[in-house]
Amino acid sequence: MLDWDHIFATRSTRMRASEIRELLKLLERPDIISFAGGIPDPALFPDAAFKDAYAEIFSSAQVNAALQYSVSEGYKPLREWLVGQMKKIGIECTVDNVFITSGSQQALDYLGKLFLSPKDTALVTWPTYLGALQAFNAYEPHYDQLNPNGNRTPDTYREQAAKNGGAVKFAYLSADFANPTGETVDRQGREKVLDLADELDIAVIEDGAYQSLRYNGEPVSPLLAIEIARKGSIENTRTIYSGSFSKTLAPGLRVGFVVANMSVIRKLVLMKQAADLHSSTINQIAIATVAERIFDDQVAKIGAAYSARRDAMLAALEKYMPAGTSWTKPEGGMFIWVTLPKGLDGAQLLARSIETEKVAFVPGQAFFADRSGENTLRLSFSCANEQMIEEGIQRLGRLIRSAEVKAA
Amino acid sequence: MLDWDHIFATRSTRMRASEIRELLKLLERPDIISFAGGIPDPALFPDAAFKDAYAEIFSSAQVNAALQYSVSEGYKPLREWLVGQMKKIGIECTVDNVFITSGSQQALDYLGKLFLSPKDTALVTWPTYLGALQAFNAYEPHYDQLNPNGNRTPDTYREQAAKNGGAVKFAYLSADFANPTGETVDRQGREKVLDLADELDIAVIEDGAYQSLRYNGEPVSPLLAIEIARKGSIENTRTIYSGSFSKTLAPGLRVGFVVANMSVIRKLVLMKQAADLHSSTINQIAIATVAERIFDDQVAKIGAAYSARRDAMLAALEKYMPAGTSWTKPEGGMFIWVTLPKGLDGAQLLARSIETEKVAFVPGQAFFADRSGENTLRLSFSCANEQMIEEGIQRLGRLIRSAEVKAA
Repeated sequence: MLDWDHIFATRSTRMRASEIRELLKLLERPDIISFAGGIPDPALFPDAAFKDAYAEIFSSAQVNAALQYSVSEGYKPLREWLVGQMKKIGIECTVDNVFITSGSQQALDYLGKLFLSPKDTALVTWPTYLGALQAFNAYEPHYDQLNPNGNRTPDTYREQAAKNGGAVKFAYLSADFANPTGETVDRQGREKVLDLADELDIAVIEDGAYQSLRYNGEPVSPLLAIEIARKGSIENTRTIYSGSFSKTLAPGLRVGFVVANMSVIRKLVLMKQAADLHSSTINQIAIATVAERIFDDQVAKIGAAYSARRDAMLAALEKYMPAGTSWTKPEGGMFIWVTLPKGLDGAQLLARSIETEKVAFVPGQAFFADRSGENTLRLSFSCANEQMIEEGIQRLGRLIRSAEVKAA
Repeated sequence: MLDWDHIFATRSTRMRASEIRELLKLLERPDIISFAGGIPDPALFPDAAFKDAYAEIFSSAQVNAALQYSVSEGYKPLREWLVGQMKKIGIECTVDNVFITSGSQQALDYLGKLFLSPKDTALVTWPTYLGALQAFNAYEPHYDQLNPNGNRTPDTYREQAAKNGGAVKFAYLSADFANPTGETVDRQGREKVLDLADELDIAVIEDGAYQSLRYNGEPVSPLLAIEIARKGSIENTRTIYSGSFSKTLAPGLRVGFVVANMSVIRKLVLMKQAADLHSSTINQIAIATVAERIFDDQVAKIGAAYSARRDAMLAALEKYMPAGTSWTKPEGGMFIWVTLPKGLDGAQLLARSIETEKVAFVPGQAFFADRSGENTLRLSFSCANEQMIEEGIQRLGRLIRSAEVKAA
């Protein structure tokens, strides 16, 4: 076999297999109770609505357009529907501010490509979405810690970035029910991130993948909505909002979107022309049809199921976790974030868990740009029923207790 | 509006709108006879087969998997079908050598990303596929001229690349019915490209987008097949074959593929995990179903229609073109390449043509990495019927004659 490493670009030699992807293989073992995968429950997919949508495409004059090449910015009726959705959450925009991607993962890849030269700095929360780190890593950045409610001065960011040989280019955060913590950034934290971005003259990437999945509590305006209110028009804003249909309708179609000022959208359109021409035409039409018909009902249906699972998991954690273990209480999304007693290691715990207790989760370290967070783990409640949750958390509590004994 | 240029990465500030995309807008004017767009004729899409494929997904147990996340390497039955197809053209491989992309444009983007650091050199033919230049440009390479039947020594390539501050990383070519020329590289040319690649220790990217569309003449083995025969196993080869269903089944689903040694495939899988997770699950299943059932019939159907259009265009060129104008005689694909008498400019001719003769084509200059080829143009025969071809080429001949008079 040829040795290719000297032919690959630097960025390529650094690529590593995703720990989470490897873990997801465990899902296939039927004896494991899995809280690992961050995927939606397929039993909740609106498959009847999709069945109709595809059937209608093939019995209408649309069929030729659905199978043909289309424009890089995306299917216009879908973008128009999104303009209406955005308006509902305070984001006033036009169809020219909306760009369709192949899932929101692609938005993160494109935004990394758009902003990051090697050695530039991206600000991310500790922990942050692992997929964002993977997408940005291809463009060889450094990371610095974004703490929405913290008080670091802009200069400390500037100096650190300069020391690393580049400039701060953007702050990335998921403000609602973030993967992996499930936590929401409050209004004050959002305002502070916008202030920091203005002071540093950088972009803000607001990952809204879970935004629709609120089960209780009061909605907080998206950063982009707050910034539009501050600055009078989306054209004056530096926040780039990315969203997805993967958590609400279905991930298998690979349809997501970006909402931003036109100067960013135009660049993303050019980037997409060069990278994959456009997202699947037929899938964009199907998503538009299904979204128009049942989006709100579907979100309500998912919310009812997931919130019951979240409640079951929170109750079980309360019941079975030893003192010294803490966890988040998310108002939406798919995840609960657990902090173990000091000295315990999530990765070691997982290895033991698979062997003895047959419970899977994701060790938290992978979500930290600095590889800290050894004593944390992510639990997903989206794909387990209440009974499995009770049983799985009981086992996990037992495991943590026994690990504490060993560590002591 | 914010000025973003100082926040964008260098690569992003260089992006320019595609000339071809702008031209494609002309297709929407009903008074224009267009030979511009390089797109398949939607009247030939196998929509009945696709209709059945999607309907079957929704009435089977597959539906949940079709709408769910899936693996980055692609849908296994589709990859298995491709192993069989590859075998038919002399490419012996396993399912682990096959990777599914969102169209072959994505393969070009990923291969640029895999190999090119800024200032590296890519070898391309003069002219070459414009989409390849656009995909590679994001990674800031230099270009040098690949002439399959030429006699440049490896050292001249090495020296030129070093002068530009990098190394030669790959040779890119479309060996069958290339876009834009319609020409095929003969066996000797393929052997020479492989020799050069061995001597330079670089990869070869073989773009097989039009490979299935042969209407007459003898097939020539793909470079990858020749190299496997030389080296005993695909694992010892440096040729990376990219293919597409866009020209045979339908482009709107965005399904293409790469066949290569496992060391390259593993990197591409990691890259895709970070960039868009995977191509649409439901579309991969639909493509696999349709390909298994009707691929050969569909290729025969397209071939019958396109070859008649090619023949009509070649006959019309013979009849209406003035002396001093020459053109290629493709044995397949969708394009004929015209070289105008010296002194004529394709771009100027197009402007005049739209105004007076209402015929659209693509000026050739955009296909040259060095922006030469002013006196060339690309004609596509895939979407015009024989009558339109006769009429359009007659008008084009008249235009060229009158331009010659003005130029003289």
